[in-house]
Amino acid sequence: MRVLLVGAGGVGTAVTRIAARRAFLAHMVVADYDLARAEAAVAALGEQAARYSARRLDASDRDAVRRMLLDERCDVLLNATDPRFVMPLFQAALEAGTHYLDMAMSLSAPHGSRPYEECGVKLGDEQFALDRRWAEAGRLALVGMGVEPGLSDVFARYAADELFDDIEEIGVRDGANLTVEGYDFAPSFSIWTTIEECLNPPVVYEEGRGWFTTAPFSEPEVFDFPEGIGPVECVNVEHEEVLLIPRWVDARRVTFKYGLGDDFIAKLKTLHALGLDATARVSVPGNDGPVQVSPRDVVAACLPDPAGLGERMTGKTCAGTWVKGSKDGKPREVYLYHVVDNQWSMREYGSQAVVWQTAVNPVVALELLSTGAWSGQGVLGPEALPPRPFLDLLTEYGSPWGLRDDS
Amino acid sequence: MRVLLVGAGGVGTAVTRIAARRAFLAHMVVADYDLARAEAAVAALGEQAARYSARRLDASDRDAVRRMLLDERCDVLLNATDPRFVMPLFQAALEAGTHYLDMAMSLSAPHGSRPYEECGVKLGDEQFALDRRWAEAGRLALVGMGVEPGLSDVFARYAADELFDDIEEIGVRDGANLTVEGYDFAPSFSIWTTIEECLNPPVVYEEGRGWFTTAPFSEPEVFDFPEGIGPVECVNVEHEEVLLIPRWVDARRVTFKYGLGDDFIAKLKTLHALGLDATARVSVPGNDGPVQVSPRDVVAACLPDPAGLGERMTGKTCAGTWVKGSKDGKPREVYLYHVVDNQWSMREYGSQAVVWQTAVNPVVALELLSTGAWSGQGVLGPEALPPRPFLDLLTEYGSPWGLRDDS
Repeated sequence: MRVLLVGAGGVGTAVTRIAARRAFLAHMVVADYDLARAEAAVAALGEQAARYSARRLDASDRDAVRRMLLDERCDVLLNATDPRFVMPLFQAALEAGTHYLDMAMSLSAPHGSRPYEECGVKLGDEQFALDRRWAEAGRLALVGMGVEPGLSDVFARYAADELFDDIEEIGVRDGANLTVEGYDFAPSFSIWTTIEECLNPPVVYEEGRGWFTTAPFSEPEVFDFPEGIGPVECVNVEHEEVLLIPRWVDARRVTFKYGLGDDFIAKLKTLHALGLDATARVSVPGNDGPVQVSPRDVVAACLPDPAGLGERMTGKTCAGTWVKGSKDGKPREVYLYHVVDNQWSMREYGSQAVVWQTAVNPVVALELLSTGAWSGQGVLGPEALPPRPFLDLLTEYGSPWGLRDDS
Repeated sequence: MRVLLVGAGGVGTAVTRIAARRAFLAHMVVADYDLARAEAAVAALGEQAARYSARRLDASDRDAVRRMLLDERCDVLLNATDPRFVMPLFQAALEAGTHYLDMAMSLSAPHGSRPYEECGVKLGDEQFALDRRWAEAGRLALVGMGVEPGLSDVFARYAADELFDDIEEIGVRDGANLTVEGYDFAPSFSIWTTIEECLNPPVVYEEGRGWFTTAPFSEPEVFDFPEGIGPVECVNVEHEEVLLIPRWVDARRVTFKYGLGDDFIAKLKTLHALGLDATARVSVPGNDGPVQVSPRDVVAACLPDPAGLGERMTGKTCAGTWVKGSKDGKPREVYLYHVVDNQWSMREYGSQAVVWQTAVNPVVALELLSTGAWSGQGVLGPEALPPRPFLDLLTEYGSPWGLRDDS
């Protein structure tokens, strides 16, 4: 399998390191708008670097992406950029006739007049609108194939297939006890994406009512995370699983809650109150007169690069899917989860826990596609495909998942 | 008197409107890096515009400022820009042989190893270092001649001259009950300057110990402001009065406290934790590749221009000087203050209260210099000059001051 990986940031770099240990990969082109970053990722692979090459590529330049897919004879494009670039990459792959994987879906737009009650454009809507074209082309766009969305969706399908007869609620729950030494504030994941998902109106699915939105940070609950992380306050956040799971899994309610903590929520609210979460460019003095910049890019530029914080970070991160329903006439409640200890991921891969956990899942998916264990046509979520092969291969990668029975 | 006004922002524009009603002004050149802004300020003056002209000028270009002072045969430069431009403007006036007034002093730099205990470079140090050159040139640099610093310093001198035999403490106290309709967060004064003064280590003066610093937002106290504003929580802030007053007025302690309120303090702390208060430029994506911008400029660009908020603003702002000591052997405590009601300043001048209150004081000072009631050579603060003529002329301008006896 020949892969074009677009984006050599934290997640992209971890992808190269995880794939380097697997034989299914014939060649991976590592492309980034910053060639030095792509080259550094490849150089770090040692003797495995022979299967990789580094290229400069602007992810927003659809034609350039299409040409690179064709020139490099790639079978699949793996998108490891931030969600702004989903649509040009998704369309370039469709035009080039390759498969496509991403870890986040096309962006939402709030409802014009009732943003905290009704959905406007939903996450992934732009991608699902092209489902028929993908199906007609006989190619697969596997969307939301990171850890959350991604593994969390595989868990939902696994619960529906093997653990429940009837599902009342599926709630993806994400929490961590990571701390970063020497920083007042150092998010462990892309602040651009974190702002996007936390400040957009959270989306909830209910059978009969469909998808609807609430105010940001709604429905706080304390969720008890496994493996020593313990209780963390979680709030509703806009996330792809809520849009994906109901398309393939029967459940009366689907939610996503993120364990942000009070301090982080307060900081996000301040960014919003000051307009610093905005992506529309503002005019500010530059070296030679006014320049136009996006405030959110400036926020990101002022914070440490989360991919570089692994050495100063301690603790664990947990992604998982809580499911409540019944089996054989009896009530059942389980939490299916995946925990990564930063100390382990740094030692084994030199990648911090959160980016490693995101990166391992698309590599597992690529391997399943290369062996034929997974296949499909059209725009599909991870829950559209059989969960068992995925969960077994993840364990084989040295990073097992867990099940806690809360019944 | 011919004046070069540099800066046609909120304060500069209010200066033009206040001076337009006074006969002492022969001509005022209104200069701004944005010519349209200078032209708009002049055009708004109606038939009085004949005494004004608008020019484009980069305040950081010392040679250009000097040439404009000479070409326009100006007697004095009035600096109404933000404090970054104090030194080039101050030096240009010295080189051109004109007088100079500003409303904020040259910037401080924190102590390298003990920033919250000892002063590094103090506010105004760079200006006072050139005192002898100004004196030798026979010209006056009147520094800190806005409302705070400015009128607050005049109050301190007035208290020492006429109200007290012995002064224990002089505490400048600033508070307001202004609200801005339709905005989550809309500071009523330049956010650039507000960040600078609130996040730098606050400076305190004590007899015997001299100047020293504390942690930001230290020594909170509730101060009761007059004319219906009422109690507001105030905290120590770095401000010019603490550096100016002890040079000319005997007091055992001098402080400055600002009524920021909890919400504003929390927002400033968040800006600091995220590094968004920084002035050093960071690299972010621009329209044609990376550009370098100052995060603090981006914060300012995201917020509404405080000068334009007058129509949506209601309430009053109070600047004043609280003095504690004794007179004729008896303990005494007074608060000398100046309150501006936004409704009044908008109706009378079309300027919002905070910028109008800052602007009126340098115009009063210019008039005193033009009549010879005030004169001097070297670098002086407002408390170096006789307070009575100033306070009387301020009242004549239709904006009287008050005295509350707290004994």
